[in-house]
Parts: sequence; C-alpha cells; structure tokens
Amino acid sequence: MRHLLSTRDLSRDQAIAILDVAEDMADVADREVKKLPTLRGKTVVNLFFEDSTRTRISFEAAAKRLSADVINFSAKGSSVSKGESLKDTAQTLAAIGADAVVIRHGSSGAPLVLANAGWIEAAIVNAGDGTHEHPTQALLDAFTIRRRLHGPASRGHGLDGVTVTIVGDILHSRVARSNVWLLTTLGASVTLVAPATLLPIGVDEWPVAVLFDLDEALARQADVVMMLRIQSERMHAAFFPNAREYSRQWGLDDGRLDRLGPDSIVMHPGPMNRGLEISAGAADSPQSTVLEQVANGVSVRMAVLYLLLSGERTLS
Amino acid sequence: MRHLLSTRDLSRDQAIAILDVAEDMADVADREVKKLPTLRGKTVVNLFFEDSTRTRISFEAAAKRLSADVINFSAKGSSVSKGESLKDTAQTLAAIGADAVVIRHGSSGAPLVLANAGWIEAAIVNAGDGTHEHPTQALLDAFTIRRRLHGPASRGHGLDGVTVTIVGDILHSRVARSNVWLLTTLGASVTLVAPATLLPIGVDEWPVAVLFDLDEALARQADVVMMLRIQSERMHAAFFPNAREYSRQWGLDDGRLDRLGPDSIVMHPGPMNRGLEISAGAADSPQSTVLEQVANGVSVRMAVLYLLLSGERTLS
Amino acid sequence: MRHLLSTRDLSRDQAIAILDVAEDMADVADREVKKLPTLRGKTVVNLFFEDSTRTRISFEAAAKRLSADVINFSAKGSSVSKGESLKDTAQTLAAIGADAVVIRHGSSGAPLVLANAGWIEAAIVNAGDGTHEHPTQALLDAFTIRRRLHGPASRGHGLDGVTVTIVGDILHSRVARSNVWLLTTLGASVTLVAPATLLPIGVDEWPVAVLFDLDEALARQADVVMMLRIQSERMHAAFFPNAREYSRQWGLDDGRLDRLGPDSIVMHPGPMNRGLEISAGAADSPQSTVLEQVANGVSVRMAVLYLLLSGERTLS
Repeated sequence: MRHLLSTRDLSRDQAIAILDVAEDMADVADREVKKLPTLRGKTVVNLFFEDSTRTRISFEAAAKRLSADVINFSAKGSSVSKGESLKDTAQTLAAIGADAVVIRHGSSGAPLVLANAGWIEAAIVNAGDGTHEHPTQALLDAFTIRRRLHGPASRGHGLDGVTVTIVGDILHSRVARSNVWLLTTLGASVTLVAPATLLPIGVDEWPVAVLFDLDEALARQADVVMMLRIQSERMHAAFFPNAREYSRQWGLDDGRLDRLGPDSIVMHPGPMNRGLEISAGAADSPQSTVLEQVANGVSVRMAVLYLLLSGERTLS
Repeated sequence: MRHLLSTRDLSRDQAIAILDVAEDMADVADREVKKLPTLRGKTVVNLFFEDSTRTRISFEAAAKRLSADVINFSAKGSSVSKGESLKDTAQTLAAIGADAVVIRHGSSGAPLVLANAGWIEAAIVNAGDGTHEHPTQALLDAFTIRRRLHGPASRGHGLDGVTVTIVGDILHSRVARSNVWLLTTLGASVTLVAPATLLPIGVDEWPVAVLFDLDEALARQADVVMMLRIQSERMHAAFFPNAREYSRQWGLDDGRLDRLGPDSIVMHPGPMNRGLEISAGAADSPQSTVLEQVANGVSVRMAVLYLLLSGERTLS
Repeated sequence: MRHLLSTRDLSRDQAIAILDVAEDMADVADREVKKLPTLRGKTVVNLFFEDSTRTRISFEAAAKRLSADVINFSAKGSSVSKGESLKDTAQTLAAIGADAVVIRHGSSGAPLVLANAGWIEAAIVNAGDGTHEHPTQALLDAFTIRRRLHGPASRGHGLDGVTVTIVGDILHSRVARSNVWLLTTLGASVTLVAPATLLPIGVDEWPVAVLFDLDEALARQADVVMMLRIQSERMHAAFFPNAREYSRQWGLDDGRLDRLGPDSIVMHPGPMNRGLEISAGAADSPQSTVLEQVANGVSVRMAVLYLLLSGERTLS
C-alpha cells in the first residue's frame, strides 16, 4: 500500500490488517508516555484546501504520537487553492521532504491525481475529497463497530453478517460512499435510507439495499444505525421546506431511539447537528459511539501513517 | 488542583506553591538546552475562540519547553464558535487524547462550564474568559512583583504589605479581576483607580479601595502601579470624547512617572497602547516590568501545566 | 554572523561557508532518520507579516529537521501588523525566549530595524522585506547553480566566470536584488533584462549589465537564465496591456527554451505563473532547476539556522 485514496481499492485482507494495526495503536493510548518513536524524522504535511479542524487535529495528534514532524498547510483562500497549481504545490511539498501528504480537497479525485501524476514520491492520504471518499472515516467506523461487537478479541475479524443502516444525505456524502465499499468488503450488509432526491444516480449498482422510509428501516433492527450530517447549505437541494421537517422525517429522535433494540449502536461522523439529524438523547445514549469514533480515529490514522511510512510492514 | 479556572479559587498556599514551581521553571531558561522531558507524550490543545497571539505563543512555548505536543485550534469564525457545540468540541478534544485544554473564550464562564460539565477529563486552563478572569496573567504579575521585591530569595514568600494600584478600565478587565483576588490572597493591599463609568457594579464588595483621580492615587506612592490596556472599541463606553482626553486624565505619562518614587514598579499586561494609557518613557523606564512580565509568563505557564499534568506534585 | 539580513553584507568567504554547510545539511536528507539533534531546546519563531506559505514551511521544515521548536506567528491582519508595535512584538518574542526570528515583512528594512534596534537578542533572519532583499532565496539559487556546475565536488567553490541572466520585474523584486549582490560577490557576471519601466532608478550603479530585449539577451547563451515571477497586481505598473502581451515579449516560452543551449539552466523562485513568465515546457524541462531550488532551500535554511544558533561554528 503506497497511498490511501479510497476504501473501494482495499481488499478484505488489507482492511483487516489496518484495523489490526489500529488495535496495537489504541494500546499506546493507555501507556504512561503516549508516544512511539516509530516515525521520528518523517514529515507529515496536512494540506487542507477545505477547513476541517476535527480531521486535521486527529491526523496531527496521530502523527505526533508517532513522533513525526507535522507541518500544517491551510490552502483555503490562498493562491494555491486554484486547481492549476496543485502540481506546483505537490512538487514543492516533495522538494521540502514531505514523507506523507494528508490532503482534504473540495474536488473529487484530487488525491488520486496527486498520487498518480508522478509529481511527488510521498504517500498520499485522502482526508476527504469532494463527494467522493473519506477512507479514514470509514476505517474508524469499521474499527468502532468491530470493537463493539468483539471487544479485545477483535483482531483478525471482519464484519461478516453485521447489518448497517446509513441514513440521510447519501448524495453528497463521501462518508457514506467510503463506508459502503469498506463495510461490504468486510462482510457487512448495508442498507441506505434517504429521500429519493438525496440518492445518487447509479445507486442501484451499489452492493446495498435502498429504502425511502426511516421508520420502516429502523423496524428491521439493524446492528448499526449510522446517521449522516445534514449540511444546511444543501437543505435546499433536498427539497425540504426547513430543518424541522427534515428532522421529523429523517432525524433519529428519542422515540426512534427507543424503538431500536438496546444492542443496536448509533453512529455519527460528527460534527453533529443536535436536534436536526440526531437528538441530544440519541447522541448521548449508551448506544452512541460518537466519542469512540473520534478516539478510534486517532488510532486508525496512526495505523495508516505507520503502514505507509514505517517500511516495517507492508500490505500486499 | 485539577484545573486553573480563576484566582478567586486559589488558597494562599496554592498560589505560593505555583509561584515557587515557576521559580524552578525560570531556572530552565538559563540552561544550555532549555527543555525538560517532563511532559513528553502529553498533548496540550490551545483552544482559542478569540485571537490572542501573545497568550497563545506563551502557552505554546511553555508546553514545548516541557516537551509536550501542542495542537493549536483557532475556533474563531469556525462553526465551533457557536456556543451550542462547546460540548461537542470538548468531547472531540477528549477523544483525541488532550491532556490539557488551554481555552480563551469571549464568554465569561466558558472554562468553568468546560471543567464542570463532565465532557472531558483533561485539565482546563483558563486563558481569559470574557470579562471574568485571566488567572495566568495574575500569577505572572504576582511572580514579577515577588521577584522584584525579594530577588532570588523569593521562594515561599507572599506579598504581605505590598501596595498595588490598578489603573484604567476595571469594568471590562479580566486582568484586573484576577489580580484583585490573587494579590489580596497573597497579602497585598489593592487600590483601583478609574472613572466611575469604568467600574463594575458591586466593586464596593471587593477587598479593595477605590479612587477616582489618578494623581491623587499616585501621590500615595504605591509599590506597584499597574496600567490596564484601554481597548479602543470600548472608548465609547467610557464616555471619553477621544484618546487624547483619556491619556491626559488616565495615562501614565512622563510627568506622572517622575512623581512615582524610584522604587515603584510599573506594570502593564500588554499589548501596550504607547502614548495612550502609558507613555513610551514609562513603558521603557527601569521601573517598568513589562518585558519581565512576558518572560515570567512562560515560567508561570510551565509551572501550571507541570502541576496539572505531571502527576508528580499535587496541591491540596 | 549574528543575523542574516541581506546578501549585500556577505563576504565571499562567508557566502561560500554557508553554501558548504548547506552541502552537509543536504546529506542529512539522505539519511534513514532525517533529523539532527543540533538545535534541541532552541526556539525559532516564524514572524510573517505577509502570507508566504512556501517560505514559511521551508523554514519550518529546516528548523524541525534540526530539532528546534517552531512557533508560527502570522501577524497579517492582526493588531501587530501596525508598524508602531514592531518593537513590542519583538520584545515579546525575546521575552518568551525566541532564539531566532524569521521575519517576512512588507516594508523594506524591517528586519534591519529588528536586528539593530536592541529590542531583541535573537538572531534575525530576513525572509523577504518589501522590495529590498530575500537573502535565503539568493543563497539557495547560488547553491543550486554551484551544484549543477560542480556536482558533489562543489565545496569551496564560488561562481567565478558563470554568466547569469535575470529576466522580468526587477523593479519590485527582492529576489533579483539579493541575487545581484550574492552572485557577483561569488564571481558571476549578471545581466538584467527588463522593460525600462520595470528597472529601478540607480540600476546603472549596480555591478550588472542591462538589456531591454529578451531575445537579444538569450542569444548570448548565458549559463543561467533566471525568470522572475510577475505579480498580476503589478501588471498595471508595467504598462503592459495584458498578460498575453507580457508573455509574448518577456516570457520564456518553448521557442526561446529551444534557442538556449542544452547546458543552460532555467531557474524560477516560484510560485510560477505557468504560461505567463514561463511556459510549462520550460518549467518542466531537464534544464529547469525549479524543484532543486525548493529542495535546496531547506538545506540552505538549515545551514543558516545552524550557523546562527549552534554556536559551534562562526563566520568572521
């Protein structure tokens, strides 16, 4: 594995190997000194063309816990945010010695271009590109599900037979896409629930079931219900008159939470719109894994950086 | 001590203990390699909802000198600056493994909420909240006064019998509040001097004297004269026609400096408006401690982070 | 050498010594762990009054590779960007323990003021001041030329007999000024080519030849052709109707590249306006050193920080 661009590329064995290394990394967090010397002398550049403080600090914490040097490069609004100079930016980062470039970009495919154009030797990690993919988010979601199901004995396991329902704005969600590919690769069954206007063309070719009614979907008692963030600037596209109406039809409110079995887990990639796609009660319930997801994000990103940069383990 | 939220909470023994550890930290600055390994593997997050480069870099320098990893999180203008998501922000920082959160916030009480709501295990350090408190500023001020009075032999001392006059916009000043509580706890006598419109309601219940005329106050020859920064956006609230008039009535100009005894020290929290609340002559005089205050700020913040995070010393 | 303010100050021996140390630093990039412990415990502050991500991350990478702590201080738009407070900013950085201040400022001479005013003990490195100088850019350019000419055996060499043609907006270019002084000090012959409106008054006293026609200049087959960046906001000052016309008369296009000898090298300080002052073909040709310049920038900046801060070597 030279880069991490999408979960669609990952084989089952590769995905499980990443999750297993992430288990090792999670153990580091329990140490007295939460730091490994593994990536000392390596330089990780966070190249963010869109703001995302949460994702940036998660990668920053992961890299620093592995003793890498981190350079933050917020390209938003600067001259380099123009597409034509992605090449020059990449070559500049290569020339200053970047070993990994963690890229967040508004255009789907930008990380793939960066990895394949030959501009830079560094490992490229996709930290979210347009509406395409957000692979470390899906990996941390899979890691979180696996830990909830298997506990400490989860190493080596996939997600065979696990049922996952993903709810909300599938059309614009890179999180949903990355999860669809990864979770099904790992053996889970995925159902998407969304209004027809928020489903992408071609969804019928995805390895998923599709439903159009949240209550019908929840009645099927999935092991996992994953709520997506609704982005207010896209409410218009959803043809919903307002937030209240969205919440009524598509939000995981306290009543719907009650109807889930007590063993169902509730996920959200954050940041949450409490009261919109998820109620405070659901967000803070024992079934919610929202905070585990954030914590696991650091472990998963440590694993990805370690596998890409340490040269000690390789994935076929 | 789990958090540092205000100086009002500190006992005399706690305050003296912090100042004594800060003396140890000040010695580190004289070493060939100005760095201690104490907080290696700890993560300090600077969570700034308001810009304050000076305070941020002081905490950043302090944390790095103790070998902690530092993550800067400028929340200003971002979605997290909305009050409703302070909880989610806090929980996110907890989940990525923050050991301390240094918070600057425009709302009085935000650090207290963060510390007490149970959202996060990390130590919370108030780096300035609204018009409430700025405890590390008061601690560095106390440290500076103690060093000027006692020199190297200052360990263990309070500020008994020291007279301090604080001048300017008391109403809006968190620096003034933190100093009032801390300096009086340490045994100093504090006099506030301000126009009546810039004094808070309830000041008569504070353990201070209040005067309304700067020249009258200076005639009393206090050991310490502390000038507050006037914020131009609050000039209007002060009912002063303009800066010149403020300066004439409330500024420490060269003439007033001359009338202070040569042993009086002149303090200012910075950044100074030279020519407004303080003349260049006063700012740069031998009596001025402005730069010592900045240098001592790093030592005091090292002491606070050390006491909160090292687990090796505790304050009752 | 206490500071690096301009190349005009550098003697030939000093300049060669910096380039020789930079050769040592370039070797570090080939190591398994690309990091030296030399500046552990030192603090380097990047004080940027103008945005320049490329220069900032180059200095940041250089300082971190030497194990220094780095504090980024973007003063743009903040209250410290007002000229009157440069003193207070400097003194604040001194007080927090800055060992070096890397300053980028819009006003010519600001780094010199910082170095000479006695406000701060730290080493000052000019990272570009107004239209005055950008000495590390010239040093990396000289280093790049020397490596291309002499390869691994370049230590100790100057640039005697090398011919360099610098093309474009000389009037506003601090890169051009720093190169004129440094390259001629090292023994090179420099020719400037520019429209008369983009040459500074007094250029006739510089140790250079001046031409007004690019094709005539290129016909002379210089060893080095250095294209300057045209800044669109200055197009107006150039009295050029538009970018196309500028490109036609003053751009290094593919035809002009062909007419250069195959041994001529093509330089650009970046970021390039591909299609304006340089064609994509020229930028990406084997003769182009654009990426070597960026990589060498880290080595040269490591050398400068090392010489200023390590105390182990001094330049007379």
